Amino acid sequence: MKNAIYAQSGGVTSVINASAYGVIKAALNAEEIDNIYVAINGINGVFNEELADMGKEDPEQIELLKFTPSSAFGSCRRKLKEESEFEEIFRIFDRYNIKYFFYNGGNDSMDTANKIHQYAQKIGYDIKVMGVPKTVDNDLPETDHTPGFGSIAKYLSVAILEGTLDVKSMAADSTKVFILETMGRHAGWVAASTALAKRHESDGPHIILLPEVPFNKEKFFEKVEKTIEKYGYCSIAASEGIKYADGTFVAARGYKDNFGNVQLGGIGSTLANLIRSELGIKTHYAVPDYLQRSGRHISSQVDVNEAIEVGAMAVKYALEGKSGYMVGIERLMNSPYMSTTKLIPLDNVANETKLVPPEFITEDGMFVNEKFIEYALPLIEGEYYPPYLNGIPLYARLKLNRI
Amino acid sequence: MKNAIYAQSGGVTSVINASAYGVIKAALNAEEIDNIYVAINGINGVFNEELADMGKEDPEQIELLKFTPSSAFGSCRRKLKEESEFEEIFRIFDRYNIKYFFYNGGNDSMDTANKIHQYAQKIGYDIKVMGVPKTVDNDLPETDHTPGFGSIAKYLSVAILEGTLDVKSMAADSTKVFILETMGRHAGWVAASTALAKRHESDGPHIILLPEVPFNKEKFFEKVEKTIEKYGYCSIAASEGIKYADGTFVAARGYKDNFGNVQLGGIGSTLANLIRSELGIKTHYAVPDYLQRSGRHISSQVDVNEAIEVGAMAVKYALEGKSGYMVGIERLMNSPYMSTTKLIPLDNVANETKLVPPEFITEDGMFVNEKFIEYALPLIEGEYYPPYLNGIPLYARLKLNRI
Repeated sequence: MKNAIYAQSGGVTSVINASAYGVIKAALNAEEIDNIYVAINGINGVFNEELADMGKEDPEQIELLKFTPSSAFGSCRRKLKEESEFEEIFRIFDRYNIKYFFYNGGNDSMDTANKIHQYAQKIGYDIKVMGVPKTVDNDLPETDHTPGFGSIAKYLSVAILEGTLDVKSMAADSTKVFILETMGRHAGWVAASTALAKRHESDGPHIILLPEVPFNKEKFFEKVEKTIEKYGYCSIAASEGIKYADGTFVAARGYKDNFGNVQLGGIGSTLANLIRSELGIKTHYAVPDYLQRSGRHISSQVDVNEAIEVGAMAVKYALEGKSGYMVGIERLMNSPYMSTTKLIPLDNVANETKLVPPEFITEDGMFVNEKFIEYALPLIEGEYYPPYLNGIPLYARLKLNRI
Repeated sequence: MKNAIYAQSGGVTSVINASAYGVIKAALNAEEIDNIYVAINGINGVFNEELADMGKEDPEQIELLKFTPSSAFGSCRRKLKEESEFEEIFRIFDRYNIKYFFYNGGNDSMDTANKIHQYAQKIGYDIKVMGVPKTVDNDLPETDHTPGFGSIAKYLSVAILEGTLDVKSMAADSTKVFILETMGRHAGWVAASTALAKRHESDGPHIILLPEVPFNKEKFFEKVEKTIEKYGYCSIAASEGIKYADGTFVAARGYKDNFGNVQLGGIGSTLANLIRSELGIKTHYAVPDYLQRSGRHISSQVDVNEAIEVGAMAVKYALEGKSGYMVGIERLMNSPYMSTTKLIPLDNVANETKLVPPEFITEDGMFVNEKFIEYALPLIEGEYYPPYLNGIPLYARLKLNRI
């Protein structure tokens, strides 16, 4: 018997189940693989021997995985540290005849996959370990981009477009500033992607605050006021992770209330209160939080297709005998956009963070330039709507009976 | 010459421009109307004589109004109070030969329309004044529902569906509670609508907090803990306007930080901090803010069609000689859903608020029942996607050259 395990780990995306779909379909079709199991809640599902046999799921529900956001199999935040953990994993792998292991996640998850690969080599256990990339943060090195990024970029571009039309409507005698708080604690790719909504100079966003650029309150206020002077309103995308030059988070330092007490909040409420209290301008802010990374109803077609592909290719590479790699994406051309996959050693990926490079950022540090647009625009192309029933998306409902 | 003015007022919706489309198309087609003008920024556009001639717009851009959220012509928050304001309005009406006035808005706007109608009667000015309903709050009396409600209901149902899948993914070893903060300061229709996402008992939302029901912290905590015990996670929709039994806003009373200082915030952050600090459970919250009412990319087809219809019918009724009415919606049947329009005297609408009735609310006060579902479900039916260009919706871009 040669069985495979697939599992999902870390923060979710709207297309991680599309990668699951790619892995599961390819594994079900592979003669070399007898059973494809999914571990429930990431690597914890291995420890707890919570495994579900994908061969026993309703094929229609498997098809719906393409359209279903978040982790259909549960995720985890566990990092492996102890030798005893690896011993335990391989005892269980051996018990279930696991010869293939596919781990779908971001930086931390690639580190886990890498350690499992290295431990297998050390003890001489015959297994192919492949990393399947997933992160809205787009911060994995060596791959052109990560599955999940195109869809959060599309979600947030549409959000800033619609939110800006709203503040534009209200600006004449009410709210004049709209702030969209985006994910991105270290890398600003997600906040930067809102620039894709801008077709004309007056369109939002007018300001993008990236964690890569130290926050300068005076310059920020100046740009807010100039934008309002010019267009009547100002639309801002702010990464949750922006910091002052001294390294403290802007949201952590907060703002003072009427009694002089420091208030803590997210970056959206912090900036809104700064603008209200120091500039006296009525401000609204939105915090999409989970909605931005699970918003499958507005995912990018390019992103969904690539997510499926990296999953399916992980199986193909493993069947060819490869192990210890992540399936990366290589861009072939921009117009028409085309990409292919490539192998990236897990060693090169684990725990590395790719930031937005200076050559993508405008001189004032508060926007991105044409080079970024050229890079990111193809990734939000195409709509790949889920099916609907009674006005609501029809997402997969798996049985996940434990073996 | 017989000219018409159309204007938009109050908070926006994703389909208010669909009503504009209905009015403008019907007026352009009407032989009795020589010119259809739009007043920029609501009634302020009349005072400022900022009028745009819809006959001079690109017809393709007029077609795009069906798909364009927020006020394409700007909105306002102005309430009319002084006799001199009405004198001024009618001087300007007379100057531009205005014989028809269409005002598109919610409670306050219907009050404005009503006062203009009454003043015209008082001074014997021949004009037909019609109110076109618009509010995501669904709180106008006598109409079955309001245009804008179906689309915010669809936006938020999809949001809670996707947000719940996210927290479900993370719950095993991280976040266990997700809170969606919704609009609705007085009426809970918007928060209630998230119930439409629930297909199975384990689906979110598990708790809906309405402003109609006094907030009881102990009962709320109990339900949160029971839900987590049963499903592993808990998903909550909370109306921004919920109050304690003594009438104070829950968000206004806030929560205490580690230093014992009272913190103020939105209802999402307030509840999240209560749950974190008093139950010790990791909690996420989303604040869609403007995104929920301007989210045209996920509008309901029923809602868009009805929004167009009330606009077009306002013109038809005015041409028939009616004045001093709002165009209401009458439900004919639920399955298949069918509706028609009816006339509601502005006197009956102005400044009245329709709350969620007790017969729609469950006994524990923290959810809605089948009667509500039966009422609201048809209103989110159908997807009416906007056209896209380069991955982003293509919304109207009007010239709005002043006459």
